[in-house]
Amino acid sequence: MKLHELSYLLECEMHGDPEHEISQVGFKKAHKNSIVFIANKRNIPQQINKFGAVLTTLDIKKSLDLDNAIISNNPSLTFTKLANIFKRTLSQPKTLDKDKNFKIGKNVSLGENPTIGCNVIIEDNVTIGNNVTISHHVTIHHGVKIGDNVVIGSGSVIGSEGFGNVLDSDNNWNHIAHLGSVLIGSNVRLGSNCSIDRGTIDDTIINSGVIIDNLVHIAHNVIIGENTAIAAKVGIAGSCNIGKRNMIGGMVGIVDHINTADDVIISATSTVNKDIKESGVYTGIMPICKHSAWKRIAVWITKLDKLSKFLNFK
Amino acid sequence: MKLHELSYLLECEMHGDPEHEISQVGFKKAHKNSIVFIANKRNIPQQINKFGAVLTTLDIKKSLDLDNAIISNNPSLTFTKLANIFKRTLSQPKTLDKDKNFKIGKNVSLGENPTIGCNVIIEDNVTIGNNVTISHHVTIHHGVKIGDNVVIGSGSVIGSEGFGNVLDSDNNWNHIAHLGSVLIGSNVRLGSNCSIDRGTIDDTIINSGVIIDNLVHIAHNVIIGENTAIAAKVGIAGSCNIGKRNMIGGMVGIVDHINTADDVIISATSTVNKDIKESGVYTGIMPICKHSAWKRIAVWITKLDKLSKFLNFK
Amino acid sequence: MKLHELSYLLECEMHGDPEHEISQVGFKKAHKNSIVFIANKRNIPQQINKFGAVLTTLDIKKSLDLDNAIISNNPSLTFTKLANIFKRTLSQPKTLDKDKNFKIGKNVSLGENPTIGCNVIIEDNVTIGNNVTISHHVTIHHGVKIGDNVVIGSGSVIGSEGFGNVLDSDNNWNHIAHLGSVLIGSNVRLGSNCSIDRGTIDDTIINSGVIIDNLVHIAHNVIIGENTAIAAKVGIAGSCNIGKRNMIGGMVGIVDHINTADDVIISATSTVNKDIKESGVYTGIMPICKHSAWKRIAVWITKLDKLSKFLNFK
Repeated sequence: MKLHELSYLLECEMHGDPEHEISQVGFKKAHKNSIVFIANKRNIPQQINKFGAVLTTLDIKKSLDLDNAIISNNPSLTFTKLANIFKRTLSQPKTLDKDKNFKIGKNVSLGENPTIGCNVIIEDNVTIGNNVTISHHVTIHHGVKIGDNVVIGSGSVIGSEGFGNVLDSDNNWNHIAHLGSVLIGSNVRLGSNCSIDRGTIDDTIINSGVIIDNLVHIAHNVIIGENTAIAAKVGIAGSCNIGKRNMIGGMVGIVDHINTADDVIISATSTVNKDIKESGVYTGIMPICKHSAWKRIAVWITKLDKLSKFLNFK
Repeated sequence: MKLHELSYLLECEMHGDPEHEISQVGFKKAHKNSIVFIANKRNIPQQINKFGAVLTTLDIKKSLDLDNAIISNNPSLTFTKLANIFKRTLSQPKTLDKDKNFKIGKNVSLGENPTIGCNVIIEDNVTIGNNVTISHHVTIHHGVKIGDNVVIGSGSVIGSEGFGNVLDSDNNWNHIAHLGSVLIGSNVRLGSNCSIDRGTIDDTIINSGVIIDNLVHIAHNVIIGENTAIAAKVGIAGSCNIGKRNMIGGMVGIVDHINTADDVIISATSTVNKDIKESGVYTGIMPICKHSAWKRIAVWITKLDKLSKFLNFK
Repeated sequence: MKLHELSYLLECEMHGDPEHEISQVGFKKAHKNSIVFIANKRNIPQQINKFGAVLTTLDIKKSLDLDNAIISNNPSLTFTKLANIFKRTLSQPKTLDKDKNFKIGKNVSLGENPTIGCNVIIEDNVTIGNNVTISHHVTIHHGVKIGDNVVIGSGSVIGSEGFGNVLDSDNNWNHIAHLGSVLIGSNVRLGSNCSIDRGTIDDTIINSGVIIDNLVHIAHNVIIGENTAIAAKVGIAGSCNIGKRNMIGGMVGIVDHINTADDVIISATSTVNKDIKESGVYTGIMPICKHSAWKRIAVWITKLDKLSKFLNFK
């Protein structure tokens, strides 16, 4: 593809030789037909002048020894389009055996233009919108509803039974059959090996625009607000109500019945055990240090109340 | 179903119109044929008088503007039966293609009345009791023994090799072939996408009545006592011996060779790195706060030993 | 097998009766044809004299009331060989139905002597070395490269899309198509239900000799150094560069763009949120205590900066 064609597809200004051929996206290894994406000045490859072109801001472009450029006010966003252009020509992951062993139940509604992987299982009464991609080994249990443009990673399970159980007088657990389902909006991405449980009576709800990484657990009756991002390994316990546009860091644990406001950011590995009522950045991480230092510190953490009493500090 | 039929099946007292028709369980949206479950007075829906009936205690019933009721001393436990009644009529998740692609090894013993999902793999020499439900994409490796009335969620792996490895003098890891297996008692529930490793020489043991949520890891040679509940995303490292009737919160990490007493409750996301020798509730969570406040605090945590020395406090 | 044959296979010195028959590895239950492995003096079974033989050091052997012995300077390492010998005769997990439902894409290179489980999916342009074992329900996405002697546990996903997304001005997330792949060296072990994401432009790299337990997440563009061990439930965020011979404890979370030196040990459940620049043992765990004590302590943790100011301590 020529540089001027690329600038046309990306709807961006072009500098340099319009006829220069660009065949791939590069980063560390320079190549005369690679375009390199530079988001900030601290991250410029050493042999920048050996790349074929750069995608960057006008400001950064001026400091580079490279003529050919695509100029964008938001180069990160433009890069999502650039990567998509080269994805189409680079990879064709769908050409597996024609017999995909795709199992489908009764009364399933599947929209237009679906991409379904191998060994996918869709139980009865599931509704799925248009342009949906469901990767390999995914299980969608009965009654789940999924919107348009949704992507589901390999090995994920949607609509498994919630962990609702009641003790009887003999200390035996009695499982509550979960009558609710899972509703997933449009433009949702879900990573690989996730588990999303169905609701007890009402539904578990993942609203439109939510993105979720790998190995995430979402329990029964959780509601996730629009455009919230959930990083890998997060666990959200039952009946939480997560606001819109939250960014939840990796391995965050949210205990049951928690509410968060809109526009909340939670640092990776923090525990959320109380409601977060206003937007902002929240953190609860034990600092890491040399193990020998930690042993000395840990003793004093467990005596903090005594220390404060000793000091008569309130 | 009429209200008097429901009260007969639930073995509970009935108030109001015996002929009132109940066709579903409701919660937020009122409907004249819905029965609503109310466990405590703080949780009464606004339009309670528009529901068809209520399942609650006699005490709560008296405060409600609703004649039709099922009365139970333990309404949560009665609700597990109620949900099961309506589950049977609402969902039929098993009616997938007849060819389920169920793979089974040699010398496998499968009890009466099994429910096996699609793409389930059972290796050689596995023994499984009666009335077992194994959902889709489950792998049961060779030699695993499973009791009666066990439920296994989609994507779970039982009997994978334990993570036992020994360094040699060249810093290469040598894997120990795991000769033990996994024993699962009766009335055990296991969620989706869990991994349960086989023992090194002896077996990994999940005793009867244990319930386990999604994405849980149980390592080689762990023993879990009867009726213990393990929430989602918990990890239990090798050779732990967990007591009976423990309740282990979500994302708890238990390091290797830990023993816990019976009747221990561990708060979600805590780390257990020493034995717990008596029953009770245990917690180890870093409090979450605004990130700006956390940065000020975290500095002082790492200086706690110096602060104590400065104060000559012991 | 006779004791002298075992000593020959293990390349170790033998004491006692060369003709004694050894048919299994034992531990808790003594049996006259069992060999028991004893690594240290604190861990000697009570009825040691009822076992058929022992694998231990010369020093420990002298203190035991048992004639038959295999003597090793490194009995743990010798035990990895011993377990392998008995594994071969005990279990034959591969004899499932001949139709394994193994799906393979175009242009896949598969080396000599592969062991492939059921329902394995290998997409286009994947390269796999010799003597590789891939267990059931594994997904290997397009373009992944895997070396020799690699073992992959059931349900793992290799090469799923990374979690790279860019917000646009409407607060919608735009996914970056990931053009990189995953490179896995030789002699790597990966547990069950893991997720390893492909790189954005460059590749995610797992170097030779790395061992990884169950339910581990490795994000896009992570590089793991040779012979590093990663315990279960670890999450490593994007673009981390982990050194050689690290030992990363269970459920450790490593935030994005972190570098660790060689020979670093990180205690289970710690969070790594800054670079670790020299080898050593590192820990960041909130101590667990009775919940009532924790409540008193947690208050003071959040006031530590005020306490230090009150004391005028720096």
